[in-house]
Order: sequence, then C-alpha cells, then structure tokens
Amino acid sequence: MKMEQEEKIEEILTRGVERVIEKNHLKKILLSDQKIRIKFGIDPTGDKIHLGNAIPLWKLKDFQELGHQIVLIIGDFTAQIGDTSDKKAIRQPLSREQIEENMRDYQEQVGRILDLDKIEFVYNSQWLRGMTFSDVVRLASNFTVAQMIERENFSQRYQEGKPIGLQEFLYPLMQGYDSVAVKSNLEVGGNDQTFNMLAGRTIQRAYHQEPQDVMALNLIEGLDGRKMSKSYGNTINITDPPSEMFGKIMSMKDELMIKYFIACTRMPMKEIKEIENGLKRSEVNPRDVKDKLAREIVSLYHSSEEAAQASREFKEIFRRKKIPTDIPEIKISESEINLVDLLAENNLVKSKNEARRLIEQKGVKIDQKVWDNWSEKV
Amino acid sequence: MKMEQEEKIEEILTRGVERVIEKNHLKKILLSDQKIRIKFGIDPTGDKIHLGNAIPLWKLKDFQELGHQIVLIIGDFTAQIGDTSDKKAIRQPLSREQIEENMRDYQEQVGRILDLDKIEFVYNSQWLRGMTFSDVVRLASNFTVAQMIERENFSQRYQEGKPIGLQEFLYPLMQGYDSVAVKSNLEVGGNDQTFNMLAGRTIQRAYHQEPQDVMALNLIEGLDGRKMSKSYGNTINITDPPSEMFGKIMSMKDELMIKYFIACTRMPMKEIKEIENGLKRSEVNPRDVKDKLAREIVSLYHSSEEAAQASREFKEIFRRKKIPTDIPEIKISESEINLVDLLAENNLVKSKNEARRLIEQKGVKIDQKVWDNWSEKV
Repeated sequence: MKMEQEEKIEEILTRGVERVIEKNHLKKILLSDQKIRIKFGIDPTGDKIHLGNAIPLWKLKDFQELGHQIVLIIGDFTAQIGDTSDKKAIRQPLSREQIEENMRDYQEQVGRILDLDKIEFVYNSQWLRGMTFSDVVRLASNFTVAQMIERENFSQRYQEGKPIGLQEFLYPLMQGYDSVAVKSNLEVGGNDQTFNMLAGRTIQRAYHQEPQDVMALNLIEGLDGRKMSKSYGNTINITDPPSEMFGKIMSMKDELMIKYFIACTRMPMKEIKEIENGLKRSEVNPRDVKDKLAREIVSLYHSSEEAAQASREFKEIFRRKKIPTDIPEIKISESEINLVDLLAENNLVKSKNEARRLIEQKGVKIDQKVWDNWSEKV
Repeated sequence: MKMEQEEKIEEILTRGVERVIEKNHLKKILLSDQKIRIKFGIDPTGDKIHLGNAIPLWKLKDFQELGHQIVLIIGDFTAQIGDTSDKKAIRQPLSREQIEENMRDYQEQVGRILDLDKIEFVYNSQWLRGMTFSDVVRLASNFTVAQMIERENFSQRYQEGKPIGLQEFLYPLMQGYDSVAVKSNLEVGGNDQTFNMLAGRTIQRAYHQEPQDVMALNLIEGLDGRKMSKSYGNTINITDPPSEMFGKIMSMKDELMIKYFIACTRMPMKEIKEIENGLKRSEVNPRDVKDKLAREIVSLYHSSEEAAQASREFKEIFRRKKIPTDIPEIKISESEINLVDLLAENNLVKSKNEARRLIEQKGVKIDQKVWDNWSEKV
C-alpha cells in the first residue's frame, strides 16, 4: 500500500513534468501527512479553457485527490500589464462585472476537472492594489536587470532588438509576491511560467517565508504542430461538444499523439508506453490509436458513452460515408441548382471550397448515389 | 539694452553648459516676459556642498535673477533607492528628523548662493509616497528595457557583467514624475543627470504636460583631476574657511584652472578667454592665474577682503616663508626632540611625511633660521 502510494506520487512528479524544484523536498512532503498549499495563477480574460490550459488543472486534480489545498489566483491585477509581446498593450483593467462574469464562466469550466468546493479562489488585486511605490522598490531590489533579461522570453526579444516594455519587468514581481500573499508551498504552471514561478521563491525568501517548490509542466502543441493558440485556430476547448472535440483530435498530426496521451488523458503510463511501442513497431494502426486518444479525451469532458457515440459517427461519416443520425432537412426552391451552391447556401459546408473538396472526395451522395462532379447541376 | 539682455541669456545658455534641450524653445521663453518654473533635485544625505555641487546652483542663481521660480526638490523618497553603483544599497529611509536637520544645514549653505526666500522647497515623498503599484506600471510603460540599458551608467555596468539592481530602473521613473508634480518648465542638473532629466520630459508627455526643457551642465574634476568626490578627498566645500579654500585651490592641477574659472566663478567669459590666451602664449605665470582663481572663488563664498587676506598669507607662508599672523604656541616637554616628531605631534602637519617634505622644501624655520635637515634633533 505504501509502495503503491509512492509509485503514484512518483508519477505525479514526473508525468508531463519538465522540471520540479526542489523535487526531493516536495516528494518528502507528499509522502508525509503534511498538507500543503498549491498555487495556480490564471488570467481573468475569459478565454475558453483548451486542452493546453487544462494540463495543469489535471495536475492540480492529482494533488487535490491527495488532500492538498489548491489556491487559484485570479490575476485581475497582473492583467493590467497586458501581453508581454506588445509593449504598448497596457490593458485597461477589466471592469469588476466583466471579471466576475469571466470567472463564473471559468469556474464552470474548471468544475469539469476539479472539485470547486475545495478550491480557494482569490483575486491578486486584493493585495497588489494596496502596494506602494516603496513596496515595488523592495520587490525589485531582489533582482538584477541581467537576471530579468536572461529570461528566455526577454533575452530573445532583446537580442532581436524588439522592444520590451519596462512594465513587463514588473510582472514577475507581482506574480512572485502572490506566492507570499497566499503562503504557497508549491506552484504549478506551464514551463513558460518557470521564470515567474522561481521569482516567487526569491520573493518569499525576501519576506522570510520558506520558498515554494515549483512544478513546470510540458506544454503541448496545437493540432497543427504549432503553439496551441486561439489565434491559430488549432485548439480544442474543453467545452467543445463531443463530436467536435472528437473530430478535431482526429485531425491531429500523428506525431503529437503520445504527448497528448501523457498530458491530456488519465490513461496509465504503462498503457501509453505499450501504445508508443506498438506505433514504433508498426503493430498498431495510427488511426486506431488516434480514435482511442479521442475517446479518452472526450470521455474526460463528457462521458464514455458520448465518446463511443462520437467515434461511431466519425467513422460512419468520414470513412464509410453513411448518413449521420442527425440529418438536417433543407428546402430547395429552385428546380435546378449547382451542387456547390446548394451545399454552401444551406450551411452544410463552411465554404464553396470545402463543398468542392467534399464532392471530389466522394463525400456527397444524393439518394445514395455519389456525386463527384461539382460542376454538375442538380 | 535688449541686445545686452540677449547676450546675457546666451551666456546663461552656453557657459559651462554641455547641452540644452530644447535650446531654441528655452531661449524664446527667456527672452519673453514669461516666468518659468525651474526644477532642481537634491539628495537629503546631508553631505557638504562642494564646488561641483555648486555649479548648478550658480546657474539657478542666473535664472533667479531673471525672476524665474526655482523649485528645489528634496529627494527624500528617491533616496531610498540608494547608490546606483551598489545593488545591495537599499538605503533605509532617513528619519524625518535626520532629513530635516540635513535640510536646515543644506539650506544654510544654499543661502550663500541663492535667495532662499524666493525658492520653493518641496519633498518628493509628498507625491511619490502615495503612488501605487498601478501608478508604477503606468510610469514604467513609457520606457523600454533597451532605453534604460542604453543609459551610459547602466550600459557600461551591463557590459562589464556588473549587477544592476532592478530597483535602479525605478529611479528615473521617480525623478521623471517629480517634473509632473512640480509642473517643471526647465530642469537643471549635471550632465550625469541627463538621462533622468529626459525621463522627466517623457513622463510629462504621458501625463499630458508640456515637456520641460533640460539643461545639462559640465561637471568639474576634483583637485587631482579625478572625479570630484568626498571619498577621494579632492573636493573644496563651499563652507571651507577662506585660507583652507584658498590653499586647496592653489594645490589644483594647472590644466583644470580654466574649467574652474568658467564653472566656479562669475568672472565674465571675455576675461576668462584673455587669461586662457595668456596661458597659451605663456604671457602669464600659472601661479598668478591660480592665485586669481583662488581669490575669485573665495570672494564668492566669503568676501574679497578675506580672499585678499588668504592670498597674502598663502604667499607669505609658502613662498616667502614668513611667519603667519596666526601662530600656534606649543609647549615642548623634552629638552631634545626630532624635528619631524615635533611637527607631527603638535599637529602642525598632517603626517610625518608632510613634515619631512616641508623641512626639505625649507618651509621650517626655527628662530628665523631655516631647518632643512629633517633627521636633525632640536
């Protein structure tokens, strides 16, 4: 039993994890009876949670299941600094109403993963708003300019001659002080947050607190292999309906599958290893593996029934090209119409290009007969 | 009459001036009837004012005489940042009592140059103390990191790998905001302050104020040619008594004399030019020029009578080696004593080395007889 617990904790400390500081310290605590406070920060911008955002939430779930206290910090104050890639982007602070609306929406989503009743939700404006210029001086005095610039995000831009707004250097100070304010023992975040999380350690020391441990998680790429980002349209949101979620995953590049199994499912590592080996030895069909991945992920956010249903329908529509269960009825007024226009005007496809492609790929049947010439009139 | 005024203003704008931004704008205002607010910042550290510190004060006097309003900002808040050359030097804020004592002392000294009754004295803690983290973000967002590092003081240290405390980057923000707070039209300072003074322009623009003009003054070296600094012991303080001030100036390197004439005296530039030419053509004795310089400076801080007296005594002691008017009496207990010890123990010289030098240079007489062998016993 103790052995089992130790294995479980070792998996929590390594699965999808890039780096833990300090791992031995953290492991010792997790193996003890001690309950710790685990900090996780989010932006109150109201974006939908996608699978990338969900990775740390699943890690937090592991800790929550072990009985530790999750402290979710809503960065309503830090948000005013804005996007660090655009120096002019001092965001106007969101209105209290807007933030609260965003947070209701966010909590509803987080509730699909974590037990909301056991989370401490706090706004960092609570302590940062009241800080003075002198406090900022005190915070700043814990860092040198060189340390700041060494941060990957900054050093690259500095070397390329791209502007870094001085206010961006204040961001790690804020996030670092958050750790002091909530008395964090461990901060969890994506590996792009490592610098800020380590800043928390520095600032806790300056305020005579024991420095938090830091767990930096691997990030996953979006469906197309680029950085997962709303603006690339390569995300899967956890609120996507089953069939959409399933379809998106099926469109993923094959080489990303194992990463997704590790970071986005709860499948035991042993099974993932087996799949990985199977793929390497070409003993399994990547399409079947992807189907399994899609079912695993849809099950997490919906149900295994819905996942199975989505899988069946996907196969029916895109492989055997059968009629889906849910057929839209459309009325046609013209007696004769171009097939491309027919599909596009009735929103059966997103664009005329898609319509042409679908027809060419023999995806369109009229009365069970394939229509593969898109210039034909119906 | 107007011509004379224009010449006078041109001299103010150029004499000992490294750079004026924007000169045409400032000149136009000075030639008009408009009265402007002129900002000058000082540290409340309580150091004695030396001739280097006094340079901008004399420039302020020019402006005061033209009827403009001098605003003297006591940097009690900025002082907490500490010396920018030592990252660990977060100064503990001075106590209110200590600052007020320093400022009484400072005002007494400034009163030797400026009309105190016409000066606005303000403490920058008055407006900086109440500023919040959000205000600091707003200030910081007007600068890029690269702009900060380009500052000479920083770029050199950065390139040498010497630490720059992040809090040092906050200093220009504070000093810059001071310009907003006092509605400065012109800031005067040493050329080492150019960056901070320009920051004032940037921040005034951000706060929708017309940016101040900036006058950066040449700095003078200390007596030995190095940077003038208390720690080098190469300063002349404006409170030094006449004979001490005179003697120090006479010990100055010859090549500094013209700079001192320009920056530290009120002698018309025309006369200084003549002296400079005389020196170049070796028509004048440098010692006489230095005597003139010393008399000019002593006259400014004491009186022309005291200056003349100091000059006479200096000549008497060090050249003709006559007995000074003010002879200390000393009692000797031993019947026989080494001359070096005699001089040193009775504080007639600062060190035994000085005693030996003085003896060798035939500067010591006993009963009107020169003693030039320092190993001899008396």
